[in-house]
Amino acid sequence: MLQLYLNPLLNSLLSFYLQIAFIGKGEELDKLLKSTNFNPSEVIQLSQHEFFMPGMVDTHIHASQYSYAGTALDMPLLQWLNTYTFPVESQFKDLDFANRVYSKVVKRTLRNGTTTACYFATIHTDASLLLGKIANDFGQRALVGKVCMDRNNFVKHYKETMQESQDETCRYVSNLKNYPLVKPVVTPRFAPSCTGALLGQLGAIAKNNNLHIQSHVSENTEEVKLVKELFPDSESYTDVYYKHNLLTDKTVMAHGCHLSDEELALFRETGASLSHCPNSNISLCSGVLNVRNVLKQKVKLGLGTDVAGGYSASMLDAVRKALDSSKILTIQDPEHDTLTFEEAFMLATLGGSQALSLDDQIGNFEVGKDFDALRVNVAAPGGPIDLIQSEGPKVSDDRNIMEVFVAGRKVIPFTEPTA
Amino acid sequence: MLQLYLNPLLNSLLSFYLQIAFIGKGEELDKLLKSTNFNPSEVIQLSQHEFFMPGMVDTHIHASQYSYAGTALDMPLLQWLNTYTFPVESQFKDLDFANRVYSKVVKRTLRNGTTTACYFATIHTDASLLLGKIANDFGQRALVGKVCMDRNNFVKHYKETMQESQDETCRYVSNLKNYPLVKPVVTPRFAPSCTGALLGQLGAIAKNNNLHIQSHVSENTEEVKLVKELFPDSESYTDVYYKHNLLTDKTVMAHGCHLSDEELALFRETGASLSHCPNSNISLCSGVLNVRNVLKQKVKLGLGTDVAGGYSASMLDAVRKALDSSKILTIQDPEHDTLTFEEAFMLATLGGSQALSLDDQIGNFEVGKDFDALRVNVAAPGGPIDLIQSEGPKVSDDRNIMEVFVAGRKVIPFTEPTA
Ligand SMILES: [Zn+2]
Ligand SMILES: [Zn+2]
Repeated sequence: MLQLYLNPLLNSLLSFYLQIAFIGKGEELDKLLKSTNFNPSEVIQLSQHEFFMPGMVDTHIHASQYSYAGTALDMPLLQWLNTYTFPVESQFKDLDFANRVYSKVVKRTLRNGTTTACYFATIHTDASLLLGKIANDFGQRALVGKVCMDRNNFVKHYKETMQESQDETCRYVSNLKNYPLVKPVVTPRFAPSCTGALLGQLGAIAKNNNLHIQSHVSENTEEVKLVKELFPDSESYTDVYYKHNLLTDKTVMAHGCHLSDEELALFRETGASLSHCPNSNISLCSGVLNVRNVLKQKVKLGLGTDVAGGYSASMLDAVRKALDSSKILTIQDPEHDTLTFEEAFMLATLGGSQALSLDDQIGNFEVGKDFDALRVNVAAPGGPIDLIQSEGPKVSDDRNIMEVFVAGRKVIPFTEPTA
Repeated sequence: MLQLYLNPLLNSLLSFYLQIAFIGKGEELDKLLKSTNFNPSEVIQLSQHEFFMPGMVDTHIHASQYSYAGTALDMPLLQWLNTYTFPVESQFKDLDFANRVYSKVVKRTLRNGTTTACYFATIHTDASLLLGKIANDFGQRALVGKVCMDRNNFVKHYKETMQESQDETCRYVSNLKNYPLVKPVVTPRFAPSCTGALLGQLGAIAKNNNLHIQSHVSENTEEVKLVKELFPDSESYTDVYYKHNLLTDKTVMAHGCHLSDEELALFRETGASLSHCPNSNISLCSGVLNVRNVLKQKVKLGLGTDVAGGYSASMLDAVRKALDSSKILTIQDPEHDTLTFEEAFMLATLGGSQALSLDDQIGNFEVGKDFDALRVNVAAPGGPIDLIQSEGPKVSDDRNIMEVFVAGRKVIPFTEPTA
């Protein structure tokens, strides 16, 4: 059996920070202990049905929408935004409400094994900063975006002016600089809710500060049509972002269900990535992304829960739904090369780290990477799996996840952060 | 708030047997207590986030395949049967093994809120009888079928002769007569694994004893083609069963993904029903049943987990997957009338009871029906749901199911049956 050994690093900001120092076979342990300063008492022995797996990376989740996750999935995207999403998001100017929801979503996703999350907050700068603080306090690695939108034809009060959006993004970025594992991400909601002028400003802010960028692209066909109307000079939805310098190798765009191969080529050439959110795409009847084609086109790809378009805040659900979606494509076309379980699992871990340009730090167990990991027990007492015949590693739900580590710090089981 | 009142009935076989006696408003409680022999101390008060829902009816589950549920979903039906299913099922001649697996699947499905299950066992009569005993001991309402198959071109030793199958079915039926909630069901595996002669015999046995019948129909296109080859004189897959008197108002057939409207008409006219198993249909890339059309054709319809073609033994998963499947059809054709959540929930409860011709006894809360019910707590401690805003009844997984009742007997939390 392979063993992992962890190396404590000094870090100015984290009291405790572990990278993977060595990967070897069990019988090498004695040798290793002799040749290094590892203490035998620090060796963790896994029990018979336990294994470590890399922490999962949720490349697209709306923290603010967690307040109604699991409800309100009875209409397509654009109506859904106006009916449910915008009214709820506008409540986040209330910091107490934001605190309640954001604490719950961070705790819940950590519990579910999401060691890294790429969050949409709302347009409110202070509440977005609070989300960053909460992720930091609970020990989750996170990209957090204050949402930008200077166009909203439906819920009129839930938007900013172009100038506000730009100024507040700058204030947001400069105020979220103190956390070691939490980074800001420039977040135009999506092209239909932004003027070209705002998109250009946000592209410039991202470029000048070398920041991550996130948004949505080509989620459903109505939306694609709307973008064509709003941006008649652009060749495609993807081109709108490209023209405004929003496609970089630190960009992740959610969905992409209806992208042409030409658009995928723009992603590949710029190094921008896609977040596949299969639960959301099915729940809102948006479309089915052809993941095989995205991989063939060599576009970086991770998985996302897209709460609350997706009803589940679990990346294990995203893995299952990615397989379901791929199998649906096989039902439609038997020649389609179905994703394997291993590929879907990879998308939830290493693929996600690549999509967020964090694969130098996380995504799998390699020497030098941070120890973001889940201790899984297939036979967890009271758990959802009945072990009958000898079986390989399996994980069903959070009850199988005994411990969660982010950068070597045990964040689940959860201990209240010191204020 | 509506209240349910339960009426203890004398029953020769059950020590404790409750039917719904009265449904009324909370303020009628005093009046009721005065006018009847109900004891105030027997009134159960639900807490703020609790509600009762009807127990769920799994209309199609292979108890024997539970031993590998959640694995082995990487090939289509016919290869899958030969590679995984038949080798595992042949192990059930070992009664110790059968006991282990069957105890686990009955406990697990009860835990998941399945108050009624329609089981396939294996070809082994004694192990199938054991499954009936186990369901009875744990208090689950069940239809249990000894599988019949006198054709198997792949795993040669896993089949019977026509005579054996017929004799053993008779022995099985006459030996499973002593349980109040467990009934035998005549179970030709599916047309490709039975000769016409055997199908005819089984039709006669069912008719002579007024028994339930279950099998599979039109699951995937390869199978449909095979049936056409094996039964060249039949007009359709459905017609094979019809010709052999296997379509009655006590018949439930799994899948039906590829049935023509003419075949659906045969179902409607005979009163036979379908079991929709969406997890299995997607997992094995079998097809997507158009539930809306089945309902339009007025064919009785329930949901099934189809473990282990379906990887989940939870009917809540079946509800979600039924919605997913319907949404997939809407993605393909925006004119498709998507199932609502309420309709999918109905299929898992009342629809299932209709599909099994048990709707005079179970399926919803009506005066005179048995009390098959789940006590659900949306806010179950340590559960999967974070309550944030005021919300209606929700159930996520078995952690929200606090108690399970079958015919008024509390079967979950589980107490070891007395031997
Ligand atoms: Zn989104
Ligand atoms: Zn089946």
